[in-house]
Amino acid sequence: MNGLLEELRAGLPAEALITDPDITASYAHDMASFCDAGTPAVVVLPRTVEQVQHVMRTATALRVPVVPQGARTGLSGAANASDGCIVLSLVKMDRILEISPVDRIAVVEPGVVNAALSRAVDEHGLSYPPDPSSWETCTIGGNIGTASGGLCCVKYGVTAEYVLGLEVVLADGRLLSTGRRTAKGVAGYDLTRLFVGSEGSLGIVVKAVLALKPRPPQQLVLAAEFPSAATACDAICRIMERGHTPSLLELMDRTTIQAVNRMANMGLPDTTEALLLAAFDTPDPSADLAAVAGLCTAAGATDVVPAEDAAESEMLLRARRMSLTALETVKSATMIDDVCVPRSKLGAMLEGTAAVAEKYGLTIGVCAHAGDGNTHPVVCFDHTDADESRRARESFDEIMALGLELGGTITGEHGVGVLKKEWLARELGEVSVELHRGIKQAFDPLGLLNPGKVF
Amino acid sequence: MNGLLEELRAGLPAEALITDPDITASYAHDMASFCDAGTPAVVVLPRTVEQVQHVMRTATALRVPVVPQGARTGLSGAANASDGCIVLSLVKMDRILEISPVDRIAVVEPGVVNAALSRAVDEHGLSYPPDPSSWETCTIGGNIGTASGGLCCVKYGVTAEYVLGLEVVLADGRLLSTGRRTAKGVAGYDLTRLFVGSEGSLGIVVKAVLALKPRPPQQLVLAAEFPSAATACDAICRIMERGHTPSLLELMDRTTIQAVNRMANMGLPDTTEALLLAAFDTPDPSADLAAVAGLCTAAGATDVVPAEDAAESEMLLRARRMSLTALETVKSATMIDDVCVPRSKLGAMLEGTAAVAEKYGLTIGVCAHAGDGNTHPVVCFDHTDADESRRARESFDEIMALGLELGGTITGEHGVGVLKKEWLARELGEVSVELHRGIKQAFDPLGLLNPGKVF
Repeated sequence: MNGLLEELRAGLPAEALITDPDITASYAHDMASFCDAGTPAVVVLPRTVEQVQHVMRTATALRVPVVPQGARTGLSGAANASDGCIVLSLVKMDRILEISPVDRIAVVEPGVVNAALSRAVDEHGLSYPPDPSSWETCTIGGNIGTASGGLCCVKYGVTAEYVLGLEVVLADGRLLSTGRRTAKGVAGYDLTRLFVGSEGSLGIVVKAVLALKPRPPQQLVLAAEFPSAATACDAICRIMERGHTPSLLELMDRTTIQAVNRMANMGLPDTTEALLLAAFDTPDPSADLAAVAGLCTAAGATDVVPAEDAAESEMLLRARRMSLTALETVKSATMIDDVCVPRSKLGAMLEGTAAVAEKYGLTIGVCAHAGDGNTHPVVCFDHTDADESRRARESFDEIMALGLELGGTITGEHGVGVLKKEWLARELGEVSVELHRGIKQAFDPLGLLNPGKVF
Repeated sequence: MNGLLEELRAGLPAEALITDPDITASYAHDMASFCDAGTPAVVVLPRTVEQVQHVMRTATALRVPVVPQGARTGLSGAANASDGCIVLSLVKMDRILEISPVDRIAVVEPGVVNAALSRAVDEHGLSYPPDPSSWETCTIGGNIGTASGGLCCVKYGVTAEYVLGLEVVLADGRLLSTGRRTAKGVAGYDLTRLFVGSEGSLGIVVKAVLALKPRPPQQLVLAAEFPSAATACDAICRIMERGHTPSLLELMDRTTIQAVNRMANMGLPDTTEALLLAAFDTPDPSADLAAVAGLCTAAGATDVVPAEDAAESEMLLRARRMSLTALETVKSATMIDDVCVPRSKLGAMLEGTAAVAEKYGLTIGVCAHAGDGNTHPVVCFDHTDADESRRARESFDEIMALGLELGGTITGEHGVGVLKKEWLARELGEVSVELHRGIKQAFDPLGLLNPGKVF
């Protein structure tokens, strides 16, 4: 332990090391519920690539595990510390190194906050679409580690689609360049994508080349009330089947609507079974909203409200934005799931989730990136009640099993971390897990990078 | 050898095996120039996953290398046979298994021809964007193996962005599932993307889940003549900088224009130094063309011709479509390069390529997916002239070196294969090559899959 600190100090300025256990404890875990976290030996906050290399060389020499961290807004425990580890926080490496409107790329350090990048590129008439709900605080490095999604994905895809190239410090401290600065490139295996979503288990991202899009027109939002989740899901299928490309297509169930109403008194229709929010950032969003309004009505919507301007649109989205916070007030604790199914199976997923809630006598609110088929069932329970906690855990598992049955995945955008490690093998199968191990072995033969996560 | 055939016959119908050396010789190579090809021991044309598994189990048991093939339209020798290998041609596995307009996916076997898929999904109001120039004959399996691009990439990206999930037969015959059928998913490492562009060196793709897009409106094309490559490249930068999203943005240099004129007497302006083609498939393409016309004029275009309908658009594109064929008539042989640079460096790339042509006393025509920065310099030479052949080869290398100097890649969309194997290490660097080897080792420990390709 003293040897570790001495070795680290040899290549790091004093302010880059935190050893006070009261402070290091605050770096122990991300925002996931019910995931074990250990006690770090030390927290390191490097500012340069060389400092990261020094940390990894030291870790390799002394065989000390390293847990990389961004803003710790993750929801799967992937950034949780293990006992005696070095927590390697990249938040001080927060420079935007380059923005090129002609090449439509940004080059950034991993600690850049998502919102800071979005604002910086906006000044150049560009946008960086990935928008996880923690976008005001989460970092690009964290987004890359967990392959984050967000509200934009139905039109713009996930973080992975915006990562063109990386610089990565490997477990032994060597520096690797992957990918490219160009729009296209097929030279060799796609190591860039291998790092995206690998939750820090293969290397430490120290620089990223990100693709940017032209800034789209301001989006307009429509809200539609439905008498059942099934009719809302039918509307979603019609919208997508007709070839529409909404910039957002979100669903809130009755439990979520009621929770939001209780918290914010927003006057949402309390008796509505499902609320659908659709948005378009096309050249003529009103025309698209009118077409979608027709499809909603045909599917059985009882009320359809298209916003007429940006302010009205923002108001309609507020309810969706506060959904998780509102559901957290229902009981003392929540577990948020992240099951993604083919969108044609969304109705079955919602119906099945309601049945699980009924079976276990639990409140489970669902909000969903409906256009992606990505549901976030939120199990609300009293964590001081042992029986209810057990039922919550069981219902959580049953929801993932349902997702797999419907041809879905146990995680659409939150990642595996500690929370879903046991479920990953069930989704991937033995052959895949063996290949995962082979890849891990090639990148991190000593198993020092974020051990105990993913698989 | 007899043992091999006997073993293969034990699990394959007679018509799936070709042993006649006159016929097997016709499977020896793809469309790349100057790439060595060996003599296959046998060509196998399986129709089922089980048959592919049998082939791989046999290959593993007898330690026989396997070279997977699609339609052999590749341009890097990646599908070239090695001596004594099993050529595993997937062209008979050509069923489209599913098309879902709601989920916007197609599930296909690897032998499906790109154009057949495009036409089939078109009937559902959908499109499969990737459009390599060989799209009428090339297969989806080949497109996945080489991560093919095409004209559409400036707006719609490359093949890789459309591959959601795969079924792959591994070297030892085991079946692996990767990825998903859902719009999003982050469960585990991205093995799907690892296979895309791996040129058959990691496994045999036997099924693919592909993402589809809504069918866009018919595109309208504009042609603009420029007095220099530099002014044309300036126009491209202005178009992209202003946030336009053309569905196609192509460039032809003077050598290419003249070759097309000689072949097809199309009446292109013979004195023009560069011809730019831009297209939009937006709701109001005429408005977009007008804006782009203005930018072209501002950059120095001497003439700008916007098409008024689909027929005129098609006529303008014909010249681009026949560019490579036309350049092939200039001399007895051609080498087509595939260097992609950041689009801000396109002008420097074209200028540098012209200097290389001058230095080596060669004719080098350039057509380019200009919006991507992806140039195809075509070195035209007399292959019976030893000195000119040597100069051609040297100029080819110099063009790749120039691409790397400008921050580009040695291959934007054609792949590495045999042609650029030595150059790959130069682009990737030692650390990356070592990791490539580690991955290869994890997937194909005996080195039986397409040996001698990629790296």
